[in-house]
Amino acid sequence: MKKYTTAYDVPNINDFADKALELKKNPFAFDTLGKHKTLGLIFFNPSLRTRLSTQKAAMSLGMNVIVMNVDGDGWKLETEEGVIMDSDKAEHIKDAFPVIGQYCDIIGVRSFPSLKDREADYADKVINDIVKYTSVPVVSLESAIRHPLQALADLMTIKELSQKAKPKVVLTWAPHPRALPQAVSNSFAETMNLADVELVITHPKGYELNPEFVGNARVVYDQKEAFKDADFIYAKNWSSYNDYGQILSQDKSWVVDEEKMALTNNAHFMHCLPVRRNVIVTDGVIDSPQSAVIQQAGNREFAVQTVLKEMLENL
Amino acid sequence: MKKYTTAYDVPNINDFADKALELKKNPFAFDTLGKHKTLGLIFFNPSLRTRLSTQKAAMSLGMNVIVMNVDGDGWKLETEEGVIMDSDKAEHIKDAFPVIGQYCDIIGVRSFPSLKDREADYADKVINDIVKYTSVPVVSLESAIRHPLQALADLMTIKELSQKAKPKVVLTWAPHPRALPQAVSNSFAETMNLADVELVITHPKGYELNPEFVGNARVVYDQKEAFKDADFIYAKNWSSYNDYGQILSQDKSWVVDEEKMALTNNAHFMHCLPVRRNVIVTDGVIDSPQSAVIQQAGNREFAVQTVLKEMLENL
Amino acid sequence: MKKYTTAYDVPNINDFADKALELKKNPFAFDTLGKHKTLGLIFFNPSLRTRLSTQKAAMSLGMNVIVMNVDGDGWKLETEEGVIMDSDKAEHIKDAFPVIGQYCDIIGVRSFPSLKDREADYADKVINDIVKYTSVPVVSLESAIRHPLQALADLMTIKELSQKAKPKVVLTWAPHPRALPQAVSNSFAETMNLADVELVITHPKGYELNPEFVGNARVVYDQKEAFKDADFIYAKNWSSYNDYGQILSQDKSWVVDEEKMALTNNAHFMHCLPVRRNVIVTDGVIDSPQSAVIQQAGNREFAVQTVLKEMLENL
Repeated sequence: MKKYTTAYDVPNINDFADKALELKKNPFAFDTLGKHKTLGLIFFNPSLRTRLSTQKAAMSLGMNVIVMNVDGDGWKLETEEGVIMDSDKAEHIKDAFPVIGQYCDIIGVRSFPSLKDREADYADKVINDIVKYTSVPVVSLESAIRHPLQALADLMTIKELSQKAKPKVVLTWAPHPRALPQAVSNSFAETMNLADVELVITHPKGYELNPEFVGNARVVYDQKEAFKDADFIYAKNWSSYNDYGQILSQDKSWVVDEEKMALTNNAHFMHCLPVRRNVIVTDGVIDSPQSAVIQQAGNREFAVQTVLKEMLENL
Repeated sequence: MKKYTTAYDVPNINDFADKALELKKNPFAFDTLGKHKTLGLIFFNPSLRTRLSTQKAAMSLGMNVIVMNVDGDGWKLETEEGVIMDSDKAEHIKDAFPVIGQYCDIIGVRSFPSLKDREADYADKVINDIVKYTSVPVVSLESAIRHPLQALADLMTIKELSQKAKPKVVLTWAPHPRALPQAVSNSFAETMNLADVELVITHPKGYELNPEFVGNARVVYDQKEAFKDADFIYAKNWSSYNDYGQILSQDKSWVVDEEKMALTNNAHFMHCLPVRRNVIVTDGVIDSPQSAVIQQAGNREFAVQTVLKEMLENL
Repeated sequence: MKKYTTAYDVPNINDFADKALELKKNPFAFDTLGKHKTLGLIFFNPSLRTRLSTQKAAMSLGMNVIVMNVDGDGWKLETEEGVIMDSDKAEHIKDAFPVIGQYCDIIGVRSFPSLKDREADYADKVINDIVKYTSVPVVSLESAIRHPLQALADLMTIKELSQKAKPKVVLTWAPHPRALPQAVSNSFAETMNLADVELVITHPKGYELNPEFVGNARVVYDQKEAFKDADFIYAKNWSSYNDYGQILSQDKSWVVDEEKMALTNNAHFMHCLPVRRNVIVTDGVIDSPQSAVIQQAGNREFAVQTVLKEMLENL
């Protein structure tokens, strides 16, 4: 596996999630596999779960880990081709990553979108350039448009909790004070399209996701209608794809609360975290026994460990 | 040991300091005890000694260590209950720490006080919430009101240097340009109350510490009177507890200098560091053979290693 | 080896570069040499290659590594003697480094110059104070006036690529929008003076380096004249030594481009990185097969590993 940047980088994401659940049972079973191997984690943006779970997973495989915050620890990186580099960016990604690739056996990278230029963001240039300019395997720790490790952990969690052959899974938009990327929603939708679920996406008009990610999901603009008989409610804010990067609504009637959850089939509540309480979801819902958010975050460790294990086995 | 946040978290702090001095003789004797165990160090505030000594101690026990600066590396954390999270704080401590607790076997946390709201600071909410919201052991790397690892290292140092059954130990306030927490002074006084010493605290009027921490210490407002026949002088600045968080004095006559040290019984000079030279203490005193500040800092490693060892043995 | 701060800290830098090239063939041959030993890396300034390559090298020797950014993670450090410390600097280097030396078996430090006070910078006070105030070996990760690990990697690269007994090596100044240290150029010149090469230095008038570093090099003010028949072109910007820290020229005619490279003996292009493309060197040159910049950066790992290995063997 040269890269893990989307659910399509593995032959079958369902089988892969099963492998991850198997690894979860005995996470130290391969604790010498990573001996003398170094994972470099390069963050262009903040991270808590991804940072900690990836370090933990790599160490459980016996790897060494080097963590670097690009802007704070190193030099600001230029990503445009052919420019005269006389701005505040001291180094080109074309030089930095081939260098990093010499010190590391696997590289993980987090790089958020600008939310200003849709075409540029959806070309997912930073992560694709890193794959192109290094010879070592690359794991996306969230790119401009996808968060594949989160979606893998989400799929694992649904498999763990589902009591049906084909559960109804609802991805619902919820309000937020800031303009957020579409990455988590894109990867969740992409992965659920490959899973054995009935996928419904609900949001106010204008918040349509890129059709490539929506796939075969049913889009419903009435949130309450969407929630009916749902087995899983996955809440997430995202900024507009069509009116790119804009906040079109902060409509509080879209907050996930107890009343709406009562419409579901006693659904499990999911969110990738960090979550703004009483903005995205009420305390009552996220603190209820049906909340799966901590379990989801816990699965992040075994999702990335499974990716690293596959990469190590194929070095 | 589910937590180490005060000297009262161990059955007997004197015996515990003896254990730490024993471990200091052979720090690698338990270098496989921490195999497959991860220590997460979460810093809300800067740190040098604590950061380095704790990493070193954990690695000497064979643990993996993950270090994270909350504000720089991750998301700003909300600590208030029930709020509508529409400020700059992206994640609630109630969500972040249960997640961290899944990746880590022991968590260390540093969180300073606001120095604005005494009641809130003295409830020591952050560290207590972390203990409450995680199931793994928690070590305080300095909370709003206590610095127990420093006080343990201080006790070790006094045991190493004392030539008396019951030495006279003087905690003296000294001036400083900034408003500082009372944490180091509180923990030092709390611990000395449990030790076999004669404890005297000296400071200008208005700088009285919380009586809970003063305990049976004798408070003397005349610094020179206090220094007479002292065996240990422990200098520290703190802001006012009564006029909470305020700087009431920057009186230079309280600087610890050679003249005052001459009043003592050739006392050892102690300070937790970082220290502002020629503001808290003169170069002449801190550079003298009687200065114990480097030894104190060295003992930090074995203080925290002893805490981690106890926690690992009881996981 | 108590310190590695210049090429003169080893008996013979040529033999030492050969040792490093030998280690490169089998970097894990000494993977238990550093057991129970801790390397502390203290950064006063940003770093990418040095940060990553040094961590990698230490881990390949079985060492534990602790990394700390002084300003972000810890306290601002005072370096002046005898001052009244009432500024924003909370701790003196005289106290911080003896403490760090207790937790670490080897210390690496990066500390850039002020570029304001030549006498102070050229006293190289920070790195020299750290050597003075700690009892453990100290590795310079770039000081105010030298970057010895870079120069060692440069020498290794020239040895790998040279097809002549005594190649012509040209260090050329090139323009840059910011005032940069002379450290890389100083160490490169110092090291090339000890190597079996013909060293030429070219730059606009006013950019003369400190004569102590220029040594026996031939200084040529005509860049094209200098490039003739060169086997290696080493580009680097530096600010003026004579008109200290000033930018005297941003003359674009000094950019290294294909036309000038055509004057050489098919020379290898070298630069320490980070490099500003199309400011220091054109894309055409740095992306050509003659560019050695990635190989240079790769050799950084084995340069520092060789230094650490020597230090570990002599602890």
